[in-house]
Amino acid sequence: MTPKLVADIEPPYYTAVFTSVRPDAPEDYAETAARMDELAREMPGFLGHESARTPGGIGITVAYFRDLESLDAWRVHSEHRAAKAHGREHWYDSYSVHIGKVERSYSFERE
Amino acid sequence: MTPKLVADIEPPYYTAVFTSVRPDAPEDYAETAARMDELAREMPGFLGHESARTPGGIGITVAYFRDLESLDAWRVHSEHRAAKAHGREHWYDSYSVHIGKVERSYSFERE
Repeated sequence: MTPKLVADIEPPYYTAVFTSVRPDAPEDYAETAARMDELAREMPGFLGHESARTPGGIGITVAYFRDLESLDAWRVHSEHRAAKAHGREHWYDSYSVHIGKVERSYSFERE
Repeated sequence: MTPKLVADIEPPYYTAVFTSVRPDAPEDYAETAARMDELAREMPGFLGHESARTPGGIGITVAYFRDLESLDAWRVHSEHRAAKAHGREHWYDSYSVHIGKVERSYSFERE
């Protein structure tokens, strides 16, 4: 199956870029990630997300939100906060989060 | 070697988020990527970049710039433009670019 990108969202919108270093397959990680995906999709203003991870390298997740209010609502969601705390305790060596307002975007698709 | 993240840049700054779908190892790709890395580092206002790619999945690159002027200077750099045109022709099934202004960021590093 060809992976599908989140594309063609009308600006302005917000991106939360999460970059991280962690072991390849930490305990509980996959279940928690699946649960967070399920929860995020229920949030008003959540427009989708994309994740990539180079084995042995870094991981990057980009989540797209309609506005800062919806991004912040997800950021402070209690189950999401608990998952992040668990991640700091058990999974991540390091991570960074960059919250950006997107005014320009473009995309390409092969004919 | 533990991968190192781009972290602790003082906001405001800009991110160019590039997400793409392409075959795993297209011809000329690695050489071109290395050359683009070398060129980008010479650009004033370029603050670093991170890339991740899930084998068989999507790739995400995030490039960090001090301001929109330096981001645009890289965007229209002639050798970079030629590489992007080559990529559309030969490598990518699809890609998206999201240009964001970052006002908030934070990072975590295990003690």
